[in-house]
Amino acid sequence: MIEFWFDFSSPYGFFGSLEVEDVARRHGRRVVWRPFMLGAVFKTTGMRPFTDIPLRGDYSIRDWKRIARMKGIPFALPPGHPINPVHPARLFYWLESRAPDQAVDFARLAYRAIFQEGADLREPEVAAAIATRAGADRTEALAALSAPEWKDRFRAATDEAVARQVFGSPFFIVDGEPFWGWDRLPMLDRWIASGGW
Amino acid sequence: MIEFWFDFSSPYGFFGSLEVEDVARRHGRRVVWRPFMLGAVFKTTGMRPFTDIPLRGDYSIRDWKRIARMKGIPFALPPGHPINPVHPARLFYWLESRAPDQAVDFARLAYRAIFQEGADLREPEVAAAIATRAGADRTEALAALSAPEWKDRFRAATDEAVARQVFGSPFFIVDGEPFWGWDRLPMLDRWIASGGW
Repeated sequence: MIEFWFDFSSPYGFFGSLEVEDVARRHGRRVVWRPFMLGAVFKTTGMRPFTDIPLRGDYSIRDWKRIARMKGIPFALPPGHPINPVHPARLFYWLESRAPDQAVDFARLAYRAIFQEGADLREPEVAAAIATRAGADRTEALAALSAPEWKDRFRAATDEAVARQVFGSPFFIVDGEPFWGWDRLPMLDRWIASGGW
Repeated sequence: MIEFWFDFSSPYGFFGSLEVEDVARRHGRRVVWRPFMLGAVFKTTGMRPFTDIPLRGDYSIRDWKRIARMKGIPFALPPGHPINPVHPARLFYWLESRAPDQAVDFARLAYRAIFQEGADLREPEVAAAIATRAGADRTEALAALSAPEWKDRFRAATDEAVARQVFGSPFFIVDGEPFWGWDRLPMLDRWIASGGW
């Protein structure tokens, strides 16, 4: 199993989402997708969104565009970046409770909508529309967005992230070993292949 | 040319120092070693040493040890980590003014002393002893440590780092393109090989 912790507002999380399943497949592992709210973890660490940090902010934007060009994919920051990820995250956990594969499809579609289509998933209607693309019912999706059950589920996932020392996005845990960042995927791959070192 | 900006207190800078010349050699490029004071740049960015950040600190220590094991080399944090890098940095620029190759030898020896031998380079005598290993005269090295000329030279290098938006260690600049972090070396390698993208 590979735990894949991510925030829907995280560009590096988006890039990780495009690669983690390939890494897992090479080793016959399953990926457990775990959206959480990075902003809540920042309260523990004192860290900030990259784009709020002088110098590092400009570099991050350049790095994201450079990674996207390297991968040959479109990329653009969404309106209001970094967005509050609460809507896609609640929909993810709602879908996961019914059909885990559908939830993963939704996560991919949501990430693509955010970072490739300029969609504003802060809007419930927009988030629900993405859920319909993954096969969900629009009215049910809108209801899930305001149901206490999925608010609580997402909050519990974020609490678990803090408890597990997940302090960034993406963050991978494999056999108890933590790997932070899209750029740690090659090391993670090697770690699994060699059984650690 | 590859500009290699680093702080002598930076473990990732140390790992970068072990690899950057190999990358340069593959492409027939020269490395310009540029020690600077990361702590001064933190005043601009508001960033902090990794080990001061909750959760991320523990992860960083784990990551450094993991990288060292992967590379099959010894590694330990020095007393007082992160140390003030002023002594090795001044000696570097003093040596560079006389013999650039000797300065690079010194930088390697200093990094090794700090992260593999537990040497405390905050002590002028200890820093000067490393300079003698690189072929310098001990008395001259001690004099250089307190000479205004090399204090100013190091300060100027740090000012240049801020002006060039160098906000972390290691930080590489190739043909105007910035790469932050030991873990960006594979991308830098690919960037040079393909002439950018």
